[in-house]
Amino acid sequence: MSIDRSKIRWNGWGWTAHEDRLAGQDVVWTWLAGELGMPALLATPARALENIELAQSRLTVEDRARFIQILGADRVRDDPFERAYHARGKSYHDLLHLRAGDLSTAPDAVLFPRSTDEVLSIFAAASEGGTAVVPYGGGTSVVGGVTGQHGAFKSVVCVDLSNMDRMIDVDPQSMTAAAEAGITGPALEKALHANGFTLGHHPQSFEFSTLGGWIAHRGAGQGSNRYGRAEEWLIGATVATPRGVLRTGGFPASSTGPRLNDLVLGSEGIFGIITEATVRLRPLPTASDYRGYLFRDFASGLAAIRDAAREEIPVTMLRLSDAPETKFYRAFGALGRKRSLADRIAQIYLDARGFDDKACAMIAGFEGDAASVAGERRQFDALAKKNGALALGEGQGRRWKDGRFHGPYLRDPMMDRGVGVDTLETATSWTKLDTLYVAVRDALESAIRETAPRPGAHGVVTCHVSHSYPDGASLYFSYSFPRALDGEVAQWRAIKNAASDAIVANGGTISHHHGIGEDHLPWMAAEKGSLGIDVLRAVKMALDPKGLLNPGKLIPD
Amino acid sequence: MSIDRSKIRWNGWGWTAHEDRLAGQDVVWTWLAGELGMPALLATPARALENIELAQSRLTVEDRARFIQILGADRVRDDPFERAYHARGKSYHDLLHLRAGDLSTAPDAVLFPRSTDEVLSIFAAASEGGTAVVPYGGGTSVVGGVTGQHGAFKSVVCVDLSNMDRMIDVDPQSMTAAAEAGITGPALEKALHANGFTLGHHPQSFEFSTLGGWIAHRGAGQGSNRYGRAEEWLIGATVATPRGVLRTGGFPASSTGPRLNDLVLGSEGIFGIITEATVRLRPLPTASDYRGYLFRDFASGLAAIRDAAREEIPVTMLRLSDAPETKFYRAFGALGRKRSLADRIAQIYLDARGFDDKACAMIAGFEGDAASVAGERRQFDALAKKNGALALGEGQGRRWKDGRFHGPYLRDPMMDRGVGVDTLETATSWTKLDTLYVAVRDALESAIRETAPRPGAHGVVTCHVSHSYPDGASLYFSYSFPRALDGEVAQWRAIKNAASDAIVANGGTISHHHGIGEDHLPWMAAEKGSLGIDVLRAVKMALDPKGLLNPGKLIPD
Repeated sequence: MSIDRSKIRWNGWGWTAHEDRLAGQDVVWTWLAGELGMPALLATPARALENIELAQSRLTVEDRARFIQILGADRVRDDPFERAYHARGKSYHDLLHLRAGDLSTAPDAVLFPRSTDEVLSIFAAASEGGTAVVPYGGGTSVVGGVTGQHGAFKSVVCVDLSNMDRMIDVDPQSMTAAAEAGITGPALEKALHANGFTLGHHPQSFEFSTLGGWIAHRGAGQGSNRYGRAEEWLIGATVATPRGVLRTGGFPASSTGPRLNDLVLGSEGIFGIITEATVRLRPLPTASDYRGYLFRDFASGLAAIRDAAREEIPVTMLRLSDAPETKFYRAFGALGRKRSLADRIAQIYLDARGFDDKACAMIAGFEGDAASVAGERRQFDALAKKNGALALGEGQGRRWKDGRFHGPYLRDPMMDRGVGVDTLETATSWTKLDTLYVAVRDALESAIRETAPRPGAHGVVTCHVSHSYPDGASLYFSYSFPRALDGEVAQWRAIKNAASDAIVANGGTISHHHGIGEDHLPWMAAEKGSLGIDVLRAVKMALDPKGLLNPGKLIPD
Repeated sequence: MSIDRSKIRWNGWGWTAHEDRLAGQDVVWTWLAGELGMPALLATPARALENIELAQSRLTVEDRARFIQILGADRVRDDPFERAYHARGKSYHDLLHLRAGDLSTAPDAVLFPRSTDEVLSIFAAASEGGTAVVPYGGGTSVVGGVTGQHGAFKSVVCVDLSNMDRMIDVDPQSMTAAAEAGITGPALEKALHANGFTLGHHPQSFEFSTLGGWIAHRGAGQGSNRYGRAEEWLIGATVATPRGVLRTGGFPASSTGPRLNDLVLGSEGIFGIITEATVRLRPLPTASDYRGYLFRDFASGLAAIRDAAREEIPVTMLRLSDAPETKFYRAFGALGRKRSLADRIAQIYLDARGFDDKACAMIAGFEGDAASVAGERRQFDALAKKNGALALGEGQGRRWKDGRFHGPYLRDPMMDRGVGVDTLETATSWTKLDTLYVAVRDALESAIRETAPRPGAHGVVTCHVSHSYPDGASLYFSYSFPRALDGEVAQWRAIKNAASDAIVANGGTISHHHGIGEDHLPWMAAEKGSLGIDVLRAVKMALDPKGLLNPGKLIPD
């Protein structure tokens, strides 16, 4: 069931065969240039792998022999494609490096273990040879979580879990399942559906990301309001560490001291490699209802989400776009399309009802059995109307659901035309949400203007709330900007710094569901405190005393 | 608002003024002797404090002066009452020692800080003087969590948080509250009710236990199905440690590495003293419905609980007694009461419907607004009937709720008459629940027979399920037995060992909500693994390098 990597872009998002919906759509590029304050967009193609020089593997003959002894020659790979493929994750920052042909973080070899014992043997061999180990699930990190850093070691191997993707057990009575950590979203859900269950964890990376990766970065799927974050569905984990196997959790609840599951969740491969996990399931929903609403402004949309949380309406998803996001997608969707009479009538209706350019679109999702879905939808409908919303019907919801994993595919063609595209996310309490939203948006807009390649150029900064809680919610920012081709990494870093500083200064967490990796390291101490960082270092020392695992991630030096 | 300790039993449960409902009820004692296979029950009164010799405080003049400098003389107490009161928690094992006049674990002084800074100063002074520090909230631990051990130190002070019991903030928009950790259940709920909110955390110790204690032992209240366990409602904690202040959490959700809240939850005072906490609130319910059901057997009652979890009926509590518990309380309730015609008719009805001595009583509780409570109750009603249950109405529920905190008061008069009373609890998956139940019950019954003071004597072992999850449930065992007066602690330990070994051998957690303390230490390594214990030791070393805090608890040597 493991994915055929030759069919996936090594320096971009997803399947190589995925249709580029923007190909030949000149109207899009002209429009986008205007949105960014640019006279035109430049062609900035990526370098092809065959034209990139890749440094020799730093593994010695003895190092290689040790790994081959454990895995056999065909599971120890150092061909250019595998090394390039595993050099980095999938952030905008990663793609800047990869597209420019910078493969300085390519691992010296990629290893494909098939068991927890093989992972332990890899650690022993790596320790002997002085080789760092970077764990790799689906490789979809957008925070530099899988960058092939060798740290203080002389070489680095990537341990790719894609051969550890078996279902171990489905227990229908307790509604739990155990699986190897390398299983991808689609393979896991297929096996669970066959038993009448779902995990319901659908991040945007769902097609490629893995069970182990979701746990390692403490992720949240699009339906986490209903199905829970990784910390809510994880029952127990098996973690191979350089000091042996750590088995955590395993009970529905327990008060036997600190919950060690929570040291595995968010560990990002620095304590060990998650090789197996047992998870809580939900019955496969028999009904699903996703639909659109239009609110007069962001505040009234937020009020509806807060009310839903307070009234305990068990929604699966409430995804509220801010006004710029609402306008952007509306304009994008209308490109090249003739305005019909119906469109014009709809516009007149909206104008008459007071929905102007402050209007904010929401997709609301409900899953479960038919009766509960209908009931929840009615409850939310009443609440949305109370907050002044217009119901837009199921079409919007269907379109969102059909495209729920497609967003990242737009980035590659945009990067081909000199446009930068990045995202970042945070969360805070309801009380601080509005201040945080304004601060981060302003920081992004300013930093983009300041780093733009020409005066007057600017970005498109959009935001949505996609995960909500009784006490607060997440904010997910997407931003496009004209690339400063003479210093793209510095530009990325300046924008990232400005937004991250604004997050920390305004009571947001530096990540709601992307994780830390390398990119968020500078803000870790502000969030965890120096004593908190000391605690993480102590745990690292207990499990990986030599520091072999994933150097340069999660814990600041 | 802090509790007047002079009104609380130092060597028993609760208010000294609480009425002894068994006083003069000879019929109860005769009946109970019969239930335990004893010809009669002996008088075994506790020793009065004034007749107990208490060792001199081991604090030097300099030690005392250091603490007085920080707190003033009236918050550094070493009178016999305070020392005796803080010598131990409230387990059966604790009371055996206290009632026998064994005050060997009395702290050398009891300190009453008023701020996080004062706690830090206490640590500095303790470190200088070589004094261990035992944190103390409500002192209601039933696992030896507050025993005044001095460990490798020359003396020990108890740090009682009862002066740190202020509400800091209630945020109605985010539905959160911050409070000092020494606030008791009633004080906290009173302040929250005034704002239209509740935390909803009601352990049996509610009247005396504290916010900090609930977090420190990772507790669960009687309504945890609705209101969540401590790990679900804790947003953030302030922890004073010997290395400084650790602030954890603070966000509705976050993926910034391991969640440090989870190292505070269950830390049992060995990493630091929780001084403040921010918690998630729920709107104060406007409706509440508690009612009784009778199932034909334990299995059909369990099936109803499992179905309710699977069908996601948001119950507040489902509390299913096994057949022995059902019979015991029925018999106990009928003592000294004439059987009325109505009683006899009811019995005939039950007989006809096939409810024999395997029948199991359940209390189901629903809280929220009137509409949701009515809806949930109807849903559960249908499900209970599908599983063959008889609805017993609200009287049973009301009686349970009225007496929800009174159970422990029965222990003292029983201990006055040579009867041992203890409880223990565990949790496991639905799949393993029945096997675990039988194994623990059998282990308790055998161990009680084997350690009974005379041949033929035996115990009364009862059990209920009180906390349920989609993947499993808790089991709470209560057992009464004739005390072996020539070796009561050994008897207690033999019974505890047998049950705990059975728990571990049959896939249960060694504690679902009581914690570890001293009593569960021997089973910690089996549950956490030696590597897991190493991790906890590493965290301890990072926060309390000298090991000042709560020696002998949580982490096995």
